[in-house]
Formats: sequence, C-alpha cells, structure tokens
Amino acid sequence: MAQFDMPLDQLEAYAPDVAEPADLDEFWTSTVAEARALGGAPTLERVETGLTQVVVDDVTFPGFGGHPIKGWLVRPAHHDVDRDGPLPGVVELLGYGGGRGLPHERLEWAAAGFAHLVMDTRGQGSHWGGGGSTPDPVGRGASVSGFMTAGIEDPHDHFYRRFYTDGVRAVDALRQVAGVDPARVAVTGASQGGGGTVAVAALTALTGTGVSAAMPDVPFLAHFRRAVQITDSHPYGEITKYLSVHRHPAAEETVWRTLSYLDGVNLARRATAPALFSVALMDTTCPPSTVYAAFNAWGGDTRRIDVYPYNDHEGGQAYRFPPQLAWLREHLG
Amino acid sequence: MAQFDMPLDQLEAYAPDVAEPADLDEFWTSTVAEARALGGAPTLERVETGLTQVVVDDVTFPGFGGHPIKGWLVRPAHHDVDRDGPLPGVVELLGYGGGRGLPHERLEWAAAGFAHLVMDTRGQGSHWGGGGSTPDPVGRGASVSGFMTAGIEDPHDHFYRRFYTDGVRAVDALRQVAGVDPARVAVTGASQGGGGTVAVAALTALTGTGVSAAMPDVPFLAHFRRAVQITDSHPYGEITKYLSVHRHPAAEETVWRTLSYLDGVNLARRATAPALFSVALMDTTCPPSTVYAAFNAWGGDTRRIDVYPYNDHEGGQAYRFPPQLAWLREHLG
Amino acid sequence: MAQFDMPLDQLEAYAPDVAEPADLDEFWTSTVAEARALGGAPTLERVETGLTQVVVDDVTFPGFGGHPIKGWLVRPAHHDVDRDGPLPGVVELLGYGGGRGLPHERLEWAAAGFAHLVMDTRGQGSHWGGGGSTPDPVGRGASVSGFMTAGIEDPHDHFYRRFYTDGVRAVDALRQVAGVDPARVAVTGASQGGGGTVAVAALTALTGTGVSAAMPDVPFLAHFRRAVQITDSHPYGEITKYLSVHRHPAAEETVWRTLSYLDGVNLARRATAPALFSVALMDTTCPPSTVYAAFNAWGGDTRRIDVYPYNDHEGGQAYRFPPQLAWLREHLG
Amino acid sequence: MAQFDMPLDQLEAYAPDVAEPADLDEFWTSTVAEARALGGAPTLERVETGLTQVVVDDVTFPGFGGHPIKGWLVRPAHHDVDRDGPLPGVVELLGYGGGRGLPHERLEWAAAGFAHLVMDTRGQGSHWGGGGSTPDPVGRGASVSGFMTAGIEDPHDHFYRRFYTDGVRAVDALRQVAGVDPARVAVTGASQGGGGTVAVAALTALTGTGVSAAMPDVPFLAHFRRAVQITDSHPYGEITKYLSVHRHPAAEETVWRTLSYLDGVNLARRATAPALFSVALMDTTCPPSTVYAAFNAWGGDTRRIDVYPYNDHEGGQAYRFPPQLAWLREHLG
Amino acid sequence: MAQFDMPLDQLEAYAPDVAEPADLDEFWTSTVAEARALGGAPTLERVETGLTQVVVDDVTFPGFGGHPIKGWLVRPAHHDVDRDGPLPGVVELLGYGGGRGLPHERLEWAAAGFAHLVMDTRGQGSHWGGGGSTPDPVGRGASVSGFMTAGIEDPHDHFYRRFYTDGVRAVDALRQVAGVDPARVAVTGASQGGGGTVAVAALTALTGTGVSAAMPDVPFLAHFRRAVQITDSHPYGEITKYLSVHRHPAAEETVWRTLSYLDGVNLARRATAPALFSVALMDTTCPPSTVYAAFNAWGGDTRRIDVYPYNDHEGGQAYRFPPQLAWLREHLG
Amino acid sequence: MAQFDMPLDQLEAYAPDVAEPADLDEFWTSTVAEARALGGAPTLERVETGLTQVVVDDVTFPGFGGHPIKGWLVRPAHHDVDRDGPLPGVVELLGYGGGRGLPHERLEWAAAGFAHLVMDTRGQGSHWGGGGSTPDPVGRGASVSGFMTAGIEDPHDHFYRRFYTDGVRAVDALRQVAGVDPARVAVTGASQGGGGTVAVAALTALTGTGVSAAMPDVPFLAHFRRAVQITDSHPYGEITKYLSVHRHPAAEETVWRTLSYLDGVNLARRATAPALFSVALMDTTCPPSTVYAAFNAWGGDTRRIDVYPYNDHEGGQAYRFPPQLAWLREHLG
Repeated sequence: MAQFDMPLDQLEAYAPDVAEPADLDEFWTSTVAEARALGGAPTLERVETGLTQVVVDDVTFPGFGGHPIKGWLVRPAHHDVDRDGPLPGVVELLGYGGGRGLPHERLEWAAAGFAHLVMDTRGQGSHWGGGGSTPDPVGRGASVSGFMTAGIEDPHDHFYRRFYTDGVRAVDALRQVAGVDPARVAVTGASQGGGGTVAVAALTALTGTGVSAAMPDVPFLAHFRRAVQITDSHPYGEITKYLSVHRHPAAEETVWRTLSYLDGVNLARRATAPALFSVALMDTTCPPSTVYAAFNAWGGDTRRIDVYPYNDHEGGQAYRFPPQLAWLREHLG
Repeated sequence: MAQFDMPLDQLEAYAPDVAEPADLDEFWTSTVAEARALGGAPTLERVETGLTQVVVDDVTFPGFGGHPIKGWLVRPAHHDVDRDGPLPGVVELLGYGGGRGLPHERLEWAAAGFAHLVMDTRGQGSHWGGGGSTPDPVGRGASVSGFMTAGIEDPHDHFYRRFYTDGVRAVDALRQVAGVDPARVAVTGASQGGGGTVAVAALTALTGTGVSAAMPDVPFLAHFRRAVQITDSHPYGEITKYLSVHRHPAAEETVWRTLSYLDGVNLARRATAPALFSVALMDTTCPPSTVYAAFNAWGGDTRRIDVYPYNDHEGGQAYRFPPQLAWLREHLG
Repeated sequence: MAQFDMPLDQLEAYAPDVAEPADLDEFWTSTVAEARALGGAPTLERVETGLTQVVVDDVTFPGFGGHPIKGWLVRPAHHDVDRDGPLPGVVELLGYGGGRGLPHERLEWAAAGFAHLVMDTRGQGSHWGGGGSTPDPVGRGASVSGFMTAGIEDPHDHFYRRFYTDGVRAVDALRQVAGVDPARVAVTGASQGGGGTVAVAALTALTGTGVSAAMPDVPFLAHFRRAVQITDSHPYGEITKYLSVHRHPAAEETVWRTLSYLDGVNLARRATAPALFSVALMDTTCPPSTVYAAFNAWGGDTRRIDVYPYNDHEGGQAYRFPPQLAWLREHLG
Repeated sequence: MAQFDMPLDQLEAYAPDVAEPADLDEFWTSTVAEARALGGAPTLERVETGLTQVVVDDVTFPGFGGHPIKGWLVRPAHHDVDRDGPLPGVVELLGYGGGRGLPHERLEWAAAGFAHLVMDTRGQGSHWGGGGSTPDPVGRGASVSGFMTAGIEDPHDHFYRRFYTDGVRAVDALRQVAGVDPARVAVTGASQGGGGTVAVAALTALTGTGVSAAMPDVPFLAHFRRAVQITDSHPYGEITKYLSVHRHPAAEETVWRTLSYLDGVNLARRATAPALFSVALMDTTCPPSTVYAAFNAWGGDTRRIDVYPYNDHEGGQAYRFPPQLAWLREHLG
Repeated sequence: MAQFDMPLDQLEAYAPDVAEPADLDEFWTSTVAEARALGGAPTLERVETGLTQVVVDDVTFPGFGGHPIKGWLVRPAHHDVDRDGPLPGVVELLGYGGGRGLPHERLEWAAAGFAHLVMDTRGQGSHWGGGGSTPDPVGRGASVSGFMTAGIEDPHDHFYRRFYTDGVRAVDALRQVAGVDPARVAVTGASQGGGGTVAVAALTALTGTGVSAAMPDVPFLAHFRRAVQITDSHPYGEITKYLSVHRHPAAEETVWRTLSYLDGVNLARRATAPALFSVALMDTTCPPSTVYAAFNAWGGDTRRIDVYPYNDHEGGQAYRFPPQLAWLREHLG
Repeated sequence: MAQFDMPLDQLEAYAPDVAEPADLDEFWTSTVAEARALGGAPTLERVETGLTQVVVDDVTFPGFGGHPIKGWLVRPAHHDVDRDGPLPGVVELLGYGGGRGLPHERLEWAAAGFAHLVMDTRGQGSHWGGGGSTPDPVGRGASVSGFMTAGIEDPHDHFYRRFYTDGVRAVDALRQVAGVDPARVAVTGASQGGGGTVAVAALTALTGTGVSAAMPDVPFLAHFRRAVQITDSHPYGEITKYLSVHRHPAAEETVWRTLSYLDGVNLARRATAPALFSVALMDTTCPPSTVYAAFNAWGGDTRRIDVYPYNDHEGGQAYRFPPQLAWLREHLG
C-alpha cells in the first residue's frame, strides 16, 4: 500500500511514549564532556578546486574519543568579514553510507552566504556519492553488516554514540573558525543526517551550548521499536536481522536497552532550538510515524514540519533548500 | 556478468559502421536552418533565489519549430563584465526523464566562473529531480510510453529531432546573452544529455557555427542496433518493446531507418570540436561498446575518454567536474 | 496481503464522495458537442483475413477534434440483414497500452451475432498485443511517460478527455453503419476500456444519445485519490510519480482538479443504462474499492457486479463473455 | 543481454547431435501401438455457448493408457458437409500449465473453416487461462513441482510420454469425426504445444499415420542439455532444480537417459510432414538454439521458420495465425 | 509491513471458528482404519555411514494405501537396550518440497539418546536438501504445480489425506521397532512437518493410539481461508492460483469443502497430547494468525507456544532443539 | 545464463597468473609469527547440551593480536582416549556472515569420531544461523558494509589478515587439546570457510606447522579481479561497490595491492597438504573459474575437486560429508 502508515491526521497527533533510561541525561552529558575534555581545535587546509565564487577548506576536527573527523568547509569567496561581518554557519550531517564526497558537491549554503561545514561520517562513505575519508577506529561485536548493530551490546560502544558526539563536536569546531559567528550556527541533514540533527540539537541543549536552529529532513533513528514492526527496509531492518539470528530474550533486552539511549524520540524531548522538519508519507525507510514521534516530542516551542505526501524516502530533496533558507534567515536573525 | 560488454582493449578499437542515410547532412542542415529561420531571441527574467554568490535568470528561448524552451541561466554574482571581460559559457543538456529542476540545483559551473545554461527537456521533467516546465506541443503515433518511439514513423517526426535542435538553439541563445563570450561556449551533459551533446557538436559543426568543446558523459543515443541486442534496459528497451509488438518487417525497416538519422555514431563523425567523453564499463543502460562506437567515430582530432571500470550508468558523477573544468579551461582558452 | 483492500461487505457499501467540479456537466456536454459538430462519417474498408465465418472492415471514424480513429468492425458472415434484421452492436474499448491489434484477435461477439467495433486507442498500442495504428496529434506538457499525466495541467488538455470523446464517437459511428441497429448498441471494455465504458455510458446519457447497456470489467480511472493512497502500481502510480517530482502545492491542486473532471465516480452518477460490472478482490492495479466507488455511484437502476475473489487485475478474462452475452441478450431485447 | 543466445547466422547452421537411445523407435512405436490397441472412439456432446457462427462439441477421446482426454471441437456453423465437402482439421496442443479453457476462447480456426480440436492437457490447466478438466491418473516419484521431472526415473513413466501419446490419439480422434477429412489434418501449438507438435508429427510418421502439416511455435522440449546450460527459467529449470538436489551421478545419468527419449531433436528427425516453425530470438524460456536444433533436424523436406528478433517467449502470438492460415491452405490442398 | 499480521495480544486471543464437516471424525477414523487394515511391518536395513556414535537404518513402512514409505531411523550407537532400557522415540515430518535427504543430515535427536525416525514425504524431496526417494503412486486432477491442489476435487483424493495417514503409520511403525518404547513416542516437524504433527496428534488421538507429545514448529496447513486472504506466498498461494483459474462457484465450493477435512484448526481440536508449538511473527508463509488459530484450538490441556518476534518462516531453527529436548524429557517421563 | 562461466574443459585448464607481491611470504610469516608470539592457550569449558553421544566444550583461544576467539569443540562421548587412542581433529571455518551458532548445530564430525572445532568468525555471526559471539576489536576506514573492504587501505589492516590468522591459531589450539592427535588435524569449510581453509593450509605450510589435509568447498576469496569482472553478487560485489564510489586511480591501486596479499590463488601455491575441493558450475557467488584458479594453483601433489554441475553457491551441502569422511580417513591415516 502506497501510504502504508497512519493517515495524516493520526500522524499529526501521534506522540508515543518510548522507553527512556533513567540515566539518559547523565549518559550523554558525560559522553559529550569526555569528548570536549580531550580538547583539540579544528585544522583548516585550503583546497584548490578551480571554483572562483566559493573557497573550500579541508577540515579536521576532534570528534568522539578525540578521533580526527574530516569535513569540507565551504564559504563564499567574495565575503569580507571585516566589511560584511561574520558568517552564519550550517553544519550538515550525511545520510547512511555516504561520505563528504568531493569539495564541490554541496554548494548551496555557501552560495547563499553561509559557512557550510559538511561533516564526514566515520567509517562510512563507500556506498554512494563521492566517498568518505574518515575511519572509525573502534571495533565491533558480532554484528550485522552496517552500523545499526555495531556495538549493540552496550550503549557506550554503539556506533551512534560516536556519530552523535562527532556532530556535537562539529558544531563546536565550526564555532571556532575565524569569521564564523558562533551565535548563529544551525545543524541540518537528511535521513541519518536528520537523526543526527535531532541528536545534536538535543545534546548541545543538554550541555548548554545549543544550536540556533535544527533542520532534520526525513530523520532516521527514532522510535526504533515501531520502525522494526512496520518496515523491513534497511537500515532499520538490520535490527530485525540481528534479532532474527540472536533469538534469545537476553539479546532482545540488550538491543532495546542500548537503542533507548539513542532513540530520537527521547532526544527530541531535550532539544530546545527552533526546528524545521520534513516528512514523506510514502517513506518506507523512515516511516512517517517514526518521524512524527520525534517531531511531536520536540522540546522547543518553535517547530514546523513540511509534508511530502507522494514521496518515498527521497522526500523533498531540492525542494527543501528554498524553504530552509527562508526559515533559517528568519530564525538566525 | 558485471563487465558484460567487450573487454577494454576491444572497446578501444571498436569502430563499427552504422547504416547512414544518404541525405543525412541535408536532413540536419535543413532542420537546423528551418529552426533558425523562425528567429526569436532568448528572454531572461531574474529569479529571486536567496543566493548571494550567483544570479539566476529564468530563460525562454526558441527551439525546434520556434517552440519556447525553458532554461536556467546561472552566473557568478561577483563578476563584472566590464572589469573582468565576458564569461565563457556552458550549455548543459539533461538526462532522460528529468527537467531543469529548481534554480539552485546545479551551481558548479557558475561557481567556477561560467555562464551556465541548463536547458529544460521538452515534454520531460516528471521522472526525477525537481521537475521540468517545457511542453512538447507535437503529438505522436502509437508508441511505447517514453520518448524513444515517439515519432518513430518518420525521422521528421521523431522526438529526438526536436531535442537535438533545441540543443543547437540553446547554444545559439547563450551566445546572444550580453556578457557571454560567443567564441567560448561548450556543451555538456550525461546520458541523454551526453547523446544530445554529441548531436549539438555535430549539428553546429555541420551548420557552421560550431562549439568550442563538447563533454558527453556516458552518452545515450548511439549505435541503436547493438544497444538493442546487448541490453534490455530502458530506454533502449523501448525500441525492443515497440518491435516486439509491431511484428512485421515494415515496422522494423521503418524503425531502423528513422533511428539512422539520430544515431550518435553517424553524428559523431560530423563533430569537429575537442571532446572529453566518459564511459562506465558496467553500464547496462548505455553499454560501453555503444559509447566507444561514438567516441571512435568522433570527427575532431582532439578527443579523450575517461573510463570508470566499476560503475554502472551513474558513471563518474561528481568525479567528472574537476577534470572537465581543468580540460575546459585548457581548451576554451 | 493478498486481499489488501476492504473486506467484501465494506466494499459493497462503499460509496464515497469524490470532489466534483461545478461545471462538470457543461465541460462534457460542450466537449462532446464540439466533437460532434465537426461531423464526418465512418469509412469502412473490407479486409481480406481468410476467415469465412466473419467479415472484417477496417474502420476510420472521427473522434475528438475530428481526429481519425481506427477500428475493426467484425460481423457474422452468414447474417443477411434483409432476412435476419439489423445486427445489435458492441463497441469495445481497450486496456492501457494496447491497440486494436490484428483483425482476427477478437471474434466472440461477431461469432455470437453482433456487429463488433473494436476501437483503437489513440497514441497507444505498442505495449502488448498486436499493435495499434492511431496517432494522437496532441502534444503534452512535462509529464510522466504514459498517459495519466499527459495534459494534467488542464482538463481540456488531458489525454482522457480525448479518449472518452473518441469512445462516444465510436458509438455514434457504429450507429451509422448500415445493417446495425442504432437502438441496440452496448459498450464494454476491461481496465482502461472499463473506465472508458463508464465514461461513454455517462457522456452519451448526458448528451441524450445513451447506450443500451454498459459492461465495464475491472474498470480503471475511478476514485483517483484513493487509488494513489492504496496502490503504487502503474498506471495510477504515474500520478504519484508526477507529484513526487512536482512537489509544490500548486501542482497538487492542479492534478486533483484536472482529474476530478475525469473521475469515473463522478461520471458513473450520470450514467443511466443497465450496467454489468466485474471486480477482482486481489486487484492491485485497479483496487476493488475504486471499482465499487464507481459501481455504487452508478446512476442507472439496473446494475450488477460479478466478483472474482481470487484474481488480481486479470479479473474474469474469458469467464466474462458467457455471462455478458446472456445478460446483454436479456437487456438489448 | 537481450539476444543472449547465438547470433542468427550461427543459429541457422546449428545442428547439434543429441544423444539418441538405440531403441528410440521401438520405444515409441510400441507406446503408440499399445495406446491404439486399447481402442475407444471419441464422444461428442454439443455445448450451448450462445455463439451463432460456430458450433462447439465437448469431446472425450482415449489417450495414453486409454485414459479419457477432454477437448473442444469447434466448427463453422454454416458449413454443410454435403454441400461443401468435409472440413480440414487442426489439432491444437497447449502451453505449459494451461487447459482447454472455455469453449469460446479459440475461434480463429473454426472461423476460417476448419474443424478445430483443442486438446486439454492431462493434469494441467490450473496455471493460466480458463482451466483444464483432464486428470492424469498416474502418480510420480520424488519430483520437482511441475511436469519436467514427473516420472524422470524411467522413460516409460515420464509425463511427456503420456502427453505425446495423447497428442497422437487426438489426431486419431479428429480423423474419426464425421465430416472431417482424415486426409487433411494438421497439428499445431506453442511452447509445450509446440514441443508436442514436433512429437506428434514424428510419432504419427513413425507409426504410419502421419499428419498433413505441423506448425510448432517457439517449441519447448528440445535439446534439454543445452537448455539447462543456457537458461535457468522454468520449466527447463525444473531439471536443474532436480539435479541440484539429487547430487549423485546415478541421478544425472537417469535424468539424461529418460529425457533422451523425449527430446524434440531426436523426434524431429523422424517427422516427415511439411513444417512451419517460429522462433523468438530473445526467448529465455525456450532459447532459440534449442528451437533451431529441432528445426534443423526436421526429417521432412518442406520446412520454414519465421523469426521474431525482438520477442521473448511470447513469440509471434496473433501474428502467427495469418501466415499459418495461408501456409496451411497451401499445404493441405 | 514487517509484523503484517495481528499484534501479539490479539493473536493470543485469536480462536476463530473454521467450517467443520459433519463427518470429519468418520472420514478420518475410516481413513486410518483402512490404512492399518492393510497391515505390513517396517523393514530396517542397516546403512553404512561411517558414523561411529550413531547407527542408521533405512526404513520402509506401509503408509496410506499400504504404499511403501521410506525413512531414516537414527539411534545412539552406544545405547544397550538390555542395560539402558528401551529408547524413547521421535517421529519427524518434513517441510514442503524436501525429502529425508542423507542419513547424516539430522543427528540431534539420536545424539540426545532418542530413536529418531525421519519420514520421507511421498512425491516430494526434489526442492531442497539431500533429496527424497518415496514416490506417490496416486495421480491428480488438473492442478497447480505442487501439492495443495493435488486431489482438491475430493477430500478422499487429496494429497494431504495421504500425507497425514503416512504420519500416523510412521508412529505405528516406530512403535514396532525393537528397542523402542512404544509408550514414549513423540511427533515433531516444522512448516508442512508442523501441520503434519498437528494432524498426527489428532488422528492418533481419534483412533485411540495417541502420541506422547507433539511439537509443531511454524505449522502450515491451518485456517486455509484466512491464509489465502492474508498472504500470497506459496504454498498457500497455490490455492489462490487454482481459484484464480477455475473461476466458477462450484470450484470454490469444492475447494473449501475438501480443505475443511484437512484444516489444522479442525484437527487440533481433536488432539489431546501435550503440545509445544512455535510461531514467528513475521512469517509470511504460515502467518502467525493461522498458527495461533490451531494452537488456540488445541484439544489437550498442556500446551505452550514459543514466540519468535523477528523471524520470517525460518522461525526458531536451531533455537528449537534445546527447549524441545528439555520439554520433551519433562513430558515423556 | 545458467552455466555462465567457462565450460568445464576450460575450467579444468584454467590457471591464471595473479599479481603477487614480492614480500608475500614475509608478510605472512611475520603475521603468523607475531600472533604466535603472543602465546596463550585455549581454554575449554564444558557445556550442558542434553546430548548424550557427544560432549561439547566452549572454547576460547588466542587469535590474531591475541584477541580471544570463540569456538565449539565437539567430541564423541563414548571415546576413551586411553583405550581408543587420541582423536583426529577437524577445524571448521564458517561462511560469510555466520557464527558458530549453538553447540548442537554441527554434529557429523564428532559423530564420526573426530574432535571437531568450529571456529567463530570475529565480528560476524549475525546474518544467518544461530549467531556468533566473537567481537573484532579492530576498527576500519570508510568502507562498504561487510568485510571485503574493511581495512582495504593496507594489507596489515584488512579483516581477512585477521581471519586467516585466527584460522591458523585455531589449528594451533586444537593441537593443544588433550586427547587430540596433533599429527592428524585437518581444516575445512565452505565459501568464506573454504577461502580460509586454503589460507590456513598455506600459512601453516609457510610457517612449518602444516595441516594433514584441507577440504575447501566452493571457496571464496580467490582471484578477486576476475570475480569482480564476472559477477556482481555479494560479497565480491563489495569490492565493486567500493571502487564505484572511490573513483580515483589511487583507490584502485590500493585495493588491488591489498587484495593481492589475501588472494587464494597466491596462497594456494604455498599449500602442500592433500586437498579435496568442491565447485559448483552455476555458482554466481564464487564463480567456478575463481575456484579452479585456486585449485589449479594448489602447491600440494594430492588434490581432487568434486564438481556439482547444477548447483549455485549452495554447492554439495550434505553431499560433501560422505566423500570428505572417506577421503579424510584415507589421508589422515
């Protein structure tokens, strides 16, 4: 069935309780604090791209565990900070399996006058696009190929603990770049990048730094239990695959416990920044009810969701940038 | 089989004869002449995009039959023609089923200092991307859904006669834009846009106007007979579908006659501009032997082909822009 | 799920309201009147088929816009009109993508003593069967390959306005053939031909000519909005595809407005002839709820629906002819 | 690859040797003799179909083992044997999984003035079409679902021994029907019906009764060993499936021995009637090399093959009847 | 949808009425009585396997109609009946399309100290695994490839009447083997083997012999009507296929009447032995509601069902043996 | 095409050269030496399985980097070492994505009187079967989900360096178990386990310890370059996927360099033990030419290959054990 999830009016009201561990705040505040305590500053190396209207730097910044995380920082070439003032910033997190690619792949934000930091995803970047270049030096248990069950044995070991923390540190890093206005930094991304956006908004709020705005598109990584019941697509299906092999109650308990620390519904409650979501009603990868579960839990007062009734997981794609730009200019001041 | 076509050394030497109609030159010179005789100049309407580093115009120019064809003209915002001289231009033709989309979708060429005209494809633009907005006012016979057999009854009626002519007229139009250097205009595109690039290079050469360079990626629309024998993927498969229904010798004769006027191998022989091709060795949509057939027939002395051994029809994607930019700067002067 | 739509008892009661444009009657009466005003009579040319029990004529009649529409007229060879009286007639409309094929493909109605006019579908006839030979001289906007969105911008331009009108004119044409009883002409067809049957019954009723009976099998082209929500199969999926690319509210509004003029639910309300429908409960192409929506809206008092609980879109196939023949003889007098 | 088998010129010359058992002639002559020795005559029961131009009889005739085999006998209604002479006859065998269906499903031959006997296939008739009604009272060993390996343990037990013999007896039966000219009876069929046609032509030749003409379309059941190497489609794939489970040399030896008695290449050598074959070059079910292997082995001097270069297993479909009718009239006298 | 059937709490309460023929008990008691009346004892032939810890016998025992049914009897090599007492027994029935395979394929039960009789399935054993070797000498009507509609015309002729009876006779046979304790024999199997397990428990209860325990895993062959509505997977889909071809009410009535004699829901009501079921909540082959329908109808007081929430039809696989062994030791005494 | 690779006679002669790094021997001798230098002995913990004919120990032994690797050691329960002498041993490596599962899953070797060590695969064991429990503590670069490109940047970092070394250490471990005859230890496995078998045979030969026999079934991990050209199935397809994203010559060079250290063709040359291979001619996962490439390179004099002409990657399955047992008894003495 094309619109296989709830009808729109039910989605709009869908605000389920998701099991929340008692020590969720402590888990994340200590996680972020440990990463920040390792210190380190972003390094920038100018890249020769042949482009004349933007300048690109190859960025390396310390992420979870202080591990070096790569990114591209793309900025307008004809912006004079002294004359025009500091630039507002946008941190972008990427979809599942992709990497930062080549420097010229994502030019809109810089072309619109933003300092745009594209964060490479550790260990990913070989499934689509131009490729990634950030290793993940942490091993994993007996897991399903992919990232959903890498470290599923314990929330401290799970891949997405590292990914979320990298995202927080990317915001920290962009704020440290000369010429960027640290008071005007937003975070965005689609799918995994959308799930990361929710997490970064939450964890920066939880640790007092915050972000100015969050723009998650068709976010992944929310309401895992429903996702697994309603879709068998990847990557949520990796959880199903894992549990279909490890068929004992202890494995099931472990899986749901670990994922409860990572669930976007629990994290969204802790976010305070203005948020612009988007959702696609025929999305079999990140079903709309899981997106609404996070959206309706959002802790901030200012939130909006744009609906694409006829799209699968590709969602709004290029249709997202114009409303995001307008909305962001309104909210960044 | 992954590399299902010939091995690379055979591909490099593959230069088949393709049936060529005796009046091919006349067919195309009169086609282009008729379109040009209808006159008309491009109109430009500035678009408010929120972008600060580039400016975008909504372009309408007269194509085949004088029909209005849409395009986006994207130029660097901080280029002063009086100060910096006229801009070199790039006309881009699009892949099958796509449209010009939204103004911000393709920013690389403008960000590199080019006047970039993205030509909408008549009647297409509803299969992927941000959509098209150019109708094709011409009807069609009993045909397969799609464009390969629209007008298959006669070369004068075929869709690709109009598409190729639109491409020639797009080059004509860009040359008429104030601030664009008419002596430095290149044409490029992937798949259907690559087939169109071959055709535009040929037809402008044939009619004396020429282009400065041609950059077809994984070009479609070449060596139809082999394509149909070696692949059943769409869109080449539309020919097969047509002939599988119209099972009489007259239909077959008509089909091959019509397509011989449109075949990229015949057209490539007439092209004279420097050319930078690309090909993917696992391309089941535009099999590599059909690409090499066009490349090896190329009429110009300067030609190069970049090979992607492990890609299907997506080919080089973002990996194309850096070598294209470097090569184009070298050849545009 | 095999029976993926509503259970049968809910289907039987399913009579949804579908948005109906205020000027629907005017739209169609003027459409049909314009076509009829263009005049023209069918021409018949005897075809040598080698068959001895039936005679076949190659028919050309004026359809929408006066465009020439082809058909086969198949009649019993051993029927003497003077002796046996005029023949009752059956107009048959065809399924999506097919054409009238070869003269001998559909012999049942003639073998049962009817004058059987198989109407070719303009622009179709290259996807299955023996092929079509009727062009559609009207162009189209940026559309999805196929016919659902050809002319979606305006109901006046939509492909199905022409197809429905062709069907009305086919009935007009058959009534003009010498030896056919104009007072005993029925219309039938499956899938697209079933949707056309509903439309022809409605539009002939609306314009005062009527038909004697209508026999739509697994009809397509009804209750578009539900179809798009409940199935992603083609051809309804072409609407979804279109809206998944043209992701702006204006496009959505345009699409639903245009389709409301063509919706079989709205048209069925205007039909008055006796009707024999059929429906398949596992039909993922034309879901049963969309069929029942048209059936339950039928304007005539005499209506019956035969149910095939275990079939997908193939429905009753050869099982339809015997009950149709018996029912038709009963209703044609 | 679309044309995945040999190129046409190689196909035309392809005449492989296929292992032939020494006692092949004896096996089949005794098989047919035993069936004929059981005697029995066809019974005809007139069916009320509502058709006026043809008459239909429900036929039961004795097949292999004297088992009752069903068929429809369709004849022109307006043919007077006394006035017009006896009718020529056509026996039609059916494709895999189908049954004789409903009486009105196949009217062309009767509409062209032939007595047309459609033979039901024992044990089949539940996969497509209108259904069959002839049981196969013989059991089977551990076999793959379907018919290719039913009785694979011994050629005497194999399903196709019974099917071929039924076909011979169908010809015998039609010749016994009053008003049918026993000297002018042809046999035809597509796919399994084509394989059966080859066999019936061979076995009637071998046993001295013969047929007047044979028209196998895209015949199945020839050159099993190559079929299994070149395609994994069903039904040939049932052999592969069987051997992929029964992985011991004895099973392999048994399989190939049994099939050698049934192989259309061996049987075609024994056929003497004029033959009109057809073949489709993109046929993945009955690959063209297996069809040509039978065609090139044909024992009769008069043979022709019509080639459909762009079709898969559907082959010529409705395009077959006109040339078959013309050719048959030429050869039946 | 991953968990496409009812939620677990509804499943646990799901106890539908299934049409039950009035003469069900008589049908089965006479069926079993007839088979037993034919007499015959199992024969055992020692097999040389090279194994040192178990001994294997090639068993032949009389099944339905007295037909010889094959099996492997695997027993611990180091068990001395005189010293250690008679062995408890386990009869295992197999999944659809499989055969008993090779002697060493299933060693757990013997390795745990049981006499393990693996019953070959007549006519099956060529779809997966090591193959079967038991023919089914009974023919069939016009049926779908496979076993669901073989003999669908009458419950006396249906394949599963024979299969169930074979299972009863396998229990009878194992009880006759010297050294096996006839008072401690259980029956088990997955999928078709699970459906057979339900039937054997019922029919032995009905005929007074009983079994000591029944362990059906993801059982097939229960609640056919719902199965056909909720899934289109094979083998239940064979019923759908049959009815989609035989589209007349008499066929439908016949099908449901025949299947009502074989339905696991009706049979489960007659079972009295302790039962350990398992079910998989994502099982699209044997949907969980059909499994619960049988489980909740179970006639015995002692029943348990183990739930695998994340598995498709593979269910618990190797996770079944440990709980089954523990449970069986508890219930066999 | 079913038998899509070379015909058998060409396969038997297929002995291609594969690029071999100059320091291959040094790379592996130092790798193994480092692992052995870390020392450590296997620990055994008796597992309560309820089985009476075999005993099972949960084994932990030091693998690459001294990392703890799990395994099951299954031995005959009724073997008295003092009385019967030490047991011969078999180390089994597992297929891609699987884990050691549950203790009772593989009983044949123990039931035949062997000490059978099933080695868990680090980081795997969540794709099929009963699951694994051995983590891989080493991280990875930007890689494709799975294991083929984990550590592709450098042969020292590649996953299969660790897996092969674990296999060598598993042999070392089994030899240390009391009651096992260190002079009679064989290694076996299918697919990935077959590739590992080749490697273990080679690396033990290279480092002087050797194995008594090697039995690789349908081995993976050989002749990577051809594999990638001839199949797009996983896991070889992971290499293709990686190179289709990382589209620069340096990536390609790195990939092939790293894989040259792991290629089974290069390793097979260094193996000296008697070998019993098996191959399936329709194997699209591990194409037969890649298997023969390793087989024909085998360094030992005694080698045999069993051919399964009709199987895909499942190969011989249960048909392997009987010939392996016979062959192994012959070669282990």
